[in-house]
Amino acid sequence: MLRAARSAALVAAILSLAACSESRSRAAAPAPSPADPQPAPAPADPQAAYLAARRAEVAAMPDPPSALPQSTGARQELAYMIELGERLLRETNTHPLTAPYVGASGLTCSSCHLDAGRKKAIASTFIGAAASFPAFNDRDGGVITLQDRVNGCFMRSMNGTRLPENSEALLAIVSYINWLSQGFPLQPDPDRAVSSLNRSFPNPAIKAMALAGKAVAANGASIYDSRCAPCHGVHGEGLVGAPPVWGERAYNRGAGMANNVQAGSWIQFNMPPAEELTLTDQEALDVAAFVNAQPHPAFVEAEHLPGGGAGYGGAEIVYHYGASFTAEQVAARVPSGPTADPALDGAALYAARCAACHGPLAGSAVRGRTAAQISAAIAGLGSMAGLKDLSAAQVEAVAAALR
Amino acid sequence: MLRAARSAALVAAILSLAACSESRSRAAAPAPSPADPQPAPAPADPQAAYLAARRAEVAAMPDPPSALPQSTGARQELAYMIELGERLLRETNTHPLTAPYVGASGLTCSSCHLDAGRKKAIASTFIGAAASFPAFNDRDGGVITLQDRVNGCFMRSMNGTRLPENSEALLAIVSYINWLSQGFPLQPDPDRAVSSLNRSFPNPAIKAMALAGKAVAANGASIYDSRCAPCHGVHGEGLVGAPPVWGERAYNRGAGMANNVQAGSWIQFNMPPAEELTLTDQEALDVAAFVNAQPHPAFVEAEHLPGGGAGYGGAEIVYHYGASFTAEQVAARVPSGPTADPALDGAALYAARCAACHGPLAGSAVRGRTAAQISAAIAGLGSMAGLKDLSAAQVEAVAAALR
Repeated sequence: MLRAARSAALVAAILSLAACSESRSRAAAPAPSPADPQPAPAPADPQAAYLAARRAEVAAMPDPPSALPQSTGARQELAYMIELGERLLRETNTHPLTAPYVGASGLTCSSCHLDAGRKKAIASTFIGAAASFPAFNDRDGGVITLQDRVNGCFMRSMNGTRLPENSEALLAIVSYINWLSQGFPLQPDPDRAVSSLNRSFPNPAIKAMALAGKAVAANGASIYDSRCAPCHGVHGEGLVGAPPVWGERAYNRGAGMANNVQAGSWIQFNMPPAEELTLTDQEALDVAAFVNAQPHPAFVEAEHLPGGGAGYGGAEIVYHYGASFTAEQVAARVPSGPTADPALDGAALYAARCAACHGPLAGSAVRGRTAAQISAAIAGLGSMAGLKDLSAAQVEAVAAALR
Repeated sequence: MLRAARSAALVAAILSLAACSESRSRAAAPAPSPADPQPAPAPADPQAAYLAARRAEVAAMPDPPSALPQSTGARQELAYMIELGERLLRETNTHPLTAPYVGASGLTCSSCHLDAGRKKAIASTFIGAAASFPAFNDRDGGVITLQDRVNGCFMRSMNGTRLPENSEALLAIVSYINWLSQGFPLQPDPDRAVSSLNRSFPNPAIKAMALAGKAVAANGASIYDSRCAPCHGVHGEGLVGAPPVWGERAYNRGAGMANNVQAGSWIQFNMPPAEELTLTDQEALDVAAFVNAQPHPAFVEAEHLPGGGAGYGGAEIVYHYGASFTAEQVAARVPSGPTADPALDGAALYAARCAACHGPLAGSAVRGRTAAQISAAIAGLGSMAGLKDLSAAQVEAVAAALR
């Protein structure tokens, strides 16, 4: 019966493919106005230009590494972890090390990060990703590690719970993504927890259209039936080889995919397979709106945190991975922020380096000594040779404190 | 009385400085043999050449960054975390976020990682360190993250317990070290969890001498009295500005410093301040042997793990940060290791991409189809357009499975 239903779905998909071909035609560039004294150069089609630029961006991406790191020792432990990590990304919902954390999810990491993140594709690739962490992540309201970012997907895209921080599974996944990033210069990002190769995500035009309320889910339904249903199923259930995109086994409402801007951009950049970067902004946004108009699991954050969120709140200052700071928690923090250069704080230098022999600063026997006198003592007295690391500026600072 | 004791210690130190100057003289290069027909070029002093090479290595180290990353948003969260991390490294045993984890330790991170790891010095600097993780670490018997490496120091060098993986303190420290590593290309290391700038650590000559039993703690005592005691105290208790080097507030027996090879190398590369890389291999090893012959806290691993080590053993496969795998745990692992390229497994490809419509491989209605026929169907049939991502090699693999 299942196969019969699938065949029926396929027939429907093929029929709708024919019926909807019109909606997939690209907008032609506007003809030059006949009133122009000279024919202006035909304005470039911004949509085509945008997609061409993204294709060029993808073409410029470096290849993933092919050789695993080889230890000179007997145990190829790092290579083992990298291979295990790749396997977990491909088999997230069936491998014994990760399946318990994603419940009934029909998704693996590789559902969105195609070919386990090896594929050169915007918003999908893991190539270079590890070099951008720790970074500020708006969703979490704080700085997050790569481990946190991975766990964000476990909680949301895969509708599961966080892998333990000290689990072999999480370390393996991070080792694998780090390997796909080898050679990339570390660049902590103060604004976004996103890889350097994925900075075009999301598509700003799709964002503007979504904010302007221009998503048309009904159009998305037609496109879905023709372009997506052959693999994802007319009920969004996912056929073999393609993940469910709605229903209880799909991503939950906390996932990036549940946001039409992110889903539309991801779809445009990655789907359909081998035809990525062909959907227009409007088409991609419409498909996203249609898919997100279907049922998805709700997202109640505490249900996706260890122990139901215990330890992720309260008065103690804890960095809340995957959870947000409250204003009170931010206010309660131990102050940091810019301070005077501690290396040039004369009183502190005196306390740390001079007071042991010369007594407290207030009643010091060497009050009034000049920088020149101090420098001479350091150079001449063996007992003060340990102070030779002080810079001239530091000696000046100590002398100033002694005035 | 304390100050009187210190003054007495200082006098003793100054006296021993004079008495021991002979032991600190460098070995002269051997004179050329008069029997030589021509005077051979004076052989280089290997010790002097080694130290000069290390000085050149240090001089070539890049500066630490000076500007904090500036967010375009209102909250300078990443900069906050970096500054907090530096503060924690300098105030580890007094700051409220870290002091509870290091008990009565007289050490901070900055005791060994001078100037909070900003100093250009082998075995001390944090510049570039974050780019070398995750890496295999022999002591832990596995792959470790930078967080693990930091926690190794909390457990051993600072004789405390591990910071929680999700603590603000650990994230801040990692953010800071990552910032000191910005621009360094990621390079996972299959052999050693050590920064690219610290690869000369430990000194191989010191290692060879230590293994040959050539450490002379009594000589180390003389050197200690003259060169170290002025700051570290005649009882190793640490004067203001210098940490204790033995006793209950010093590093424990599990620390790298408790190993004469590592301690001797670190001392040669970093001490005395502003006179680093002047002690000979023998002198540095002797000082290390003397210091390590004094009392230090014992290291019982379980006492330094959360919950007394609960969760760090047992049948479940858990990656044991800071603890070692047993042979049974390694044997019990889910196998990984090299496998055939899954992307070219024809039967698996058929199951994932073809079986939904064509039924199981064994009774497939399309058995016997050639690669050319399959490719033509993919190109020509809209219902098979979703297979356009298959490579020619993958189509060949499917065709082979269908034979």
